[in-house]
Amino acid sequence: MTTNPLQSVQWAGTYLELLDQRLLPNELVMLPLHTVEQVWESIRSLAVRGAPAIGITAAYGVVLGAHAIQQADARVWLDDIDQVIQYLATSRPTAVNLFWALDRMKATAEAAASTFATCKERTQALLAEAQLIQREDEEVCRQIGEYALTLFTDGMGVLTHCNAGGLATAKYGTALAPFYLAQEKGIRLKVFADETRPVLQGARLTAFELQQAGVDVTLICDNMAGYIMSKGWVQAVIVGTDRVAANGDVANKIGTYSVAVLAKAHGIPFYVASPLSTIDLAAKSGEDIPIEVRPSAEITEGLGTRIAPAGIQVFNPAFDITPAELVTAIITEKGIIQPPYPRQLALLFAASTGQI
Amino acid sequence: MTTNPLQSVQWAGTYLELLDQRLLPNELVMLPLHTVEQVWESIRSLAVRGAPAIGITAAYGVVLGAHAIQQADARVWLDDIDQVIQYLATSRPTAVNLFWALDRMKATAEAAASTFATCKERTQALLAEAQLIQREDEEVCRQIGEYALTLFTDGMGVLTHCNAGGLATAKYGTALAPFYLAQEKGIRLKVFADETRPVLQGARLTAFELQQAGVDVTLICDNMAGYIMSKGWVQAVIVGTDRVAANGDVANKIGTYSVAVLAKAHGIPFYVASPLSTIDLAAKSGEDIPIEVRPSAEITEGLGTRIAPAGIQVFNPAFDITPAELVTAIITEKGIIQPPYPRQLALLFAASTGQI
Repeated sequence: MTTNPLQSVQWAGTYLELLDQRLLPNELVMLPLHTVEQVWESIRSLAVRGAPAIGITAAYGVVLGAHAIQQADARVWLDDIDQVIQYLATSRPTAVNLFWALDRMKATAEAAASTFATCKERTQALLAEAQLIQREDEEVCRQIGEYALTLFTDGMGVLTHCNAGGLATAKYGTALAPFYLAQEKGIRLKVFADETRPVLQGARLTAFELQQAGVDVTLICDNMAGYIMSKGWVQAVIVGTDRVAANGDVANKIGTYSVAVLAKAHGIPFYVASPLSTIDLAAKSGEDIPIEVRPSAEITEGLGTRIAPAGIQVFNPAFDITPAELVTAIITEKGIIQPPYPRQLALLFAASTGQI
Repeated sequence: MTTNPLQSVQWAGTYLELLDQRLLPNELVMLPLHTVEQVWESIRSLAVRGAPAIGITAAYGVVLGAHAIQQADARVWLDDIDQVIQYLATSRPTAVNLFWALDRMKATAEAAASTFATCKERTQALLAEAQLIQREDEEVCRQIGEYALTLFTDGMGVLTHCNAGGLATAKYGTALAPFYLAQEKGIRLKVFADETRPVLQGARLTAFELQQAGVDVTLICDNMAGYIMSKGWVQAVIVGTDRVAANGDVANKIGTYSVAVLAKAHGIPFYVASPLSTIDLAAKSGEDIPIEVRPSAEITEGLGTRIAPAGIQVFNPAFDITPAELVTAIITEKGIIQPPYPRQLALLFAASTGQI
């Protein structure tokens, strides 16, 4: 697999380095983060984004928090760690990987508190867990890419929305992983990238990282997706996700739902690439997934120029819900899941935890 | 009707003034145009846009061309005018009003050449025709607004795409005319304006002119239209058009087709406001309407900041075709037309030319 030259999250020995995704593709700046507050702010302000990358960043955030805690008493130490975790959980509401990673860190903290006498040893255990989460994510993305690629053939046009690429994960990406794999294997896909207003993750990140890897990628505005489908240029859609509910409803970047409706109207399969860590069986349906509404300035002033009159009313939801009936298949690291999702997702989790 | 304070096209005695729509809403600048070349460039560069406003501007462009022609010989004068008309016709390919207005100016020139001996008199006749086209457009828009308003009731949410408002026409607009009328009559509509990438006519123009008139307008990104429909916030869609074919296919700003597909998927009526001058019976279907593809920089650098990597492939169609089967009704100044469009449009034209 072509290695993505950009690593969005890197542990630098005693602090965390993030590639500041707000400045891409114009500037490549690594942000050094030394405190939990800096981590919270970097997630909130979208310096790091993408469900898996947010989870990894939050895990390292707990390590940074532990560095600052000098408290030998195990119970007090655990309470302090718990406060760090609760604080980081408030940074963004929709991506379930944030909570999934923090839950893993909490379990690790509990084990460390009862096993180790010193803060140093406990912090070391937390760091090991964060690094494991990051390594596992790389492997998960690679496996998703392998499964996804079985759905594509040479010469196909494939549309993607937002950025579920190497920048959104530890490496490779989820929805973009098959494009890297195809490139390596000489399978020529024609990728269309929605620019993804308002924050333009498609234009700034997807177009950028695929171009860097030599993939044939064409940038369009979000409102052009229907038109290129009507011209017969798109044979499949693949997107990432921030959370999948137990019934197969999919939360992803705003605009995903519109793309799914358009795909259905044109008879085009609509695929969702999702690690198991992004599937939330506790959410029965999309109605249980909170949709973050972000500041209006992202739309009216997000591009350096004011593009709307002062005082205009704005609605800026960051995500939407694509109902399960529009989803042709969900591609996980354990295989490709097809409807009926409630049953298939439950079976998948039972199998992955050895309960089947 | 609430008077729109902004007039996009104004004859200033000896030259033409255009409100530079590229600078809105941040700056209100009137562009003085003295030559045909300046008129061509202002249409091409989108200083003026909107099918009816383009037609009116081109008509005045012919007057400016006539000012520069000192040629008493009627046949040579007419040849010179014809060259001006042919040149102006190359400014933009999709909006039929451009050709419709130039055809009227050509017929007027022919009549003037055979009636008047002096260039001054002939130019006066051309000016009178351009002013008539402008006055008629005001009246047409008012009538479209009256008919369209019969489709809306108090409390409805109505989505519009791009700008078919006062700025796109002589006054009032086509798709926006009912909103001005509703405002005057105390009918409360909740308007949603798609920002309309890449040139952002929705954010810069529609949001601006409706806000100025006190209309309840909310700005969204194009990719949010499906989501607000799924929430039940939209009871109708109304858009303008650059050309309607004989079978009812509608060319309009890129993204219109996606909105129409989404409206159908949600059971929401999709209305097109169109003066008769925008209906082109010579185009059998949408396939006969050329779709302008514009420079990629409109997407990648259109907002003052580079938002995509250098050298990225881009596809930037300015318009798309909405097939007739997605159009619930076409609202003209002569009434509301419903399917079957081939028959109903033919009847409408026969009636409007007294042939029925």
